[in-house]
Amino acid sequence: MPTPPTDAPDSLVAYSDVAAAAERLDGVVHQTPVMTSQTLNAKATAELFFKCENFQRTGAFKIRGGYNAVSQLSPEAKERGVITYSSGNHAQAVALAGRLLGVDATIVMPKTAPQVKLDATRDYGAEVVPYDPDETVREELGRRLAEERGLTLVPPYDHPDVVAGQGTVGDELFGQVDDLDALLVCCGGGGLLSGCALAARHHAPDCTVVGVEPAAGDDATRSFHSGELQTVKNPDTVADGARTPYLGDVTFPLVLEHVDDMVTVSDGTLVRAMHLLWERMKIVVEPTGALGAAALLGDAVPGQNRRVGVVVSGGNVDLARAGALFDEYGVV
Amino acid sequence: MPTPPTDAPDSLVAYSDVAAAAERLDGVVHQTPVMTSQTLNAKATAELFFKCENFQRTGAFKIRGGYNAVSQLSPEAKERGVITYSSGNHAQAVALAGRLLGVDATIVMPKTAPQVKLDATRDYGAEVVPYDPDETVREELGRRLAEERGLTLVPPYDHPDVVAGQGTVGDELFGQVDDLDALLVCCGGGGLLSGCALAARHHAPDCTVVGVEPAAGDDATRSFHSGELQTVKNPDTVADGARTPYLGDVTFPLVLEHVDDMVTVSDGTLVRAMHLLWERMKIVVEPTGALGAAALLGDAVPGQNRRVGVVVSGGNVDLARAGALFDEYGVV
Repeated sequence: MPTPPTDAPDSLVAYSDVAAAAERLDGVVHQTPVMTSQTLNAKATAELFFKCENFQRTGAFKIRGGYNAVSQLSPEAKERGVITYSSGNHAQAVALAGRLLGVDATIVMPKTAPQVKLDATRDYGAEVVPYDPDETVREELGRRLAEERGLTLVPPYDHPDVVAGQGTVGDELFGQVDDLDALLVCCGGGGLLSGCALAARHHAPDCTVVGVEPAAGDDATRSFHSGELQTVKNPDTVADGARTPYLGDVTFPLVLEHVDDMVTVSDGTLVRAMHLLWERMKIVVEPTGALGAAALLGDAVPGQNRRVGVVVSGGNVDLARAGALFDEYGVV
Repeated sequence: MPTPPTDAPDSLVAYSDVAAAAERLDGVVHQTPVMTSQTLNAKATAELFFKCENFQRTGAFKIRGGYNAVSQLSPEAKERGVITYSSGNHAQAVALAGRLLGVDATIVMPKTAPQVKLDATRDYGAEVVPYDPDETVREELGRRLAEERGLTLVPPYDHPDVVAGQGTVGDELFGQVDDLDALLVCCGGGGLLSGCALAARHHAPDCTVVGVEPAAGDDATRSFHSGELQTVKNPDTVADGARTPYLGDVTFPLVLEHVDDMVTVSDGTLVRAMHLLWERMKIVVEPTGALGAAALLGDAVPGQNRRVGVVVSGGNVDLARAGALFDEYGVV
């Protein structure tokens, strides 16, 4: 058995941080199930193991990083509270982390966000500060509020504690399934991908780690292949969780070092994969959560009868919007 | 601890039949997971344990009874083959049971059935005999084919081996969750309900077993309360799995003897419960599969902070049809 590689000395996050996060999260987050489907195996010509973070608390993996970050703040910082800006899963993650840890959470959200998301964030006890995206740059508003109120910003991906927390998804998966030949992870800002890659390097050094992006938001794929950070602006993709403009200072080096390949899938392939997960596996998966499956089912990644872990990142999608997507892409 | 009651001598099915079916099904069907949701617990004022047969092979519990029945045929009967008529989950169950046991299966299906169901049944290797429901009575066609070809009819619910197989759902659940105060089971022809009631009586004699029907197809509820078999004709309900016209000779006595109560829910309550299971629990459940949850969420059954098992019978629903139902009932 090969020796697990040691983390490079200049890495901002090491596997030991993932392991420490796993201990912190024990009993706080769900150990999500790994699901299989003979139908999908046949379609992908591979043995697939879906790590179902759509069943995670708040409906997505983000609570892992959010909780891991908030829990490590100093007592003074906890007393003052935390802030973040997000219209997506990170908002609810920080809101719930705050409630669980007794830390006031302020979430800057576009007032155009679906009412159900605004309500869910408030239900977790967070203060929602709505803003008009046409008039306000959310980062500026977030920074101003943080300064005025002494709040600590919990970024959605580019922070060592967030990356370490998200890496517990992979850490769990390798404890649940042996001998994975490959691991597919969706990629937005790279927090989940780089954290899971650290876990893979530790548990299964020979496992091929592949990041998957929507074709329209392919900044990380271009960054990976060129070695230079590339950006994308407001990419037009249904994968709303992967519309991030670029990898971060923390995540880009980790992706370069620990990820084996990056691929992209079209929105059409993505919506078809999502439909298949709903129809055949009976699980509700959001578009971004279907990126890994789409890479296999759309042939971006060959199955080759391998044992492949596929991270399903979340299941937060408006059901009517999902129906409209199936219609729009003619998937029945 | 109270002694489990012995089965009445005149029962056509006893708990020992359920236990024997469980052994037969071991390694053939999935042990489906039990899922929980704090959100749904709060809404129901109870601690809910969802037995997720939507994750079962073929997408519904029906494979349990179908396999248990086909596997016990004589070698000669197996050689000749089996037949059933169904446009729903029982069709695929018998088709798959036939394939697994090397028994030719003929399925009489309305030619108006969704193409996806016709294809799925053929994919399991069954011969599909389509008929025009305006011109042909399926029972007559089924009987004629059975006679001509020497096939054994596998009925969808009214057979001791089918009931015993469906009872393994409850048998598994009581092995997975301790101290259930109540068990809610959807009811069409009563196969699943009476089988699960047998399991409950054995494992948890004090557990209250409640059958749940759609209000428009309330024949079993009326039969239960009057003690006389009542019927219903083509009930207009979205719960297509519970449109059966009456309980059977095998199931009615079992329901009378072992079930504690029967309740009904409106289609509106049912569709809202189904939406909640999709949106909050991230699982795809067919209308009939949401009957148990609907009884709790619509107050037909009080929560009373009890530990309640809820059987989710299946997840086979056309996604576009589900979206149309959500629209029609204004659930968002």
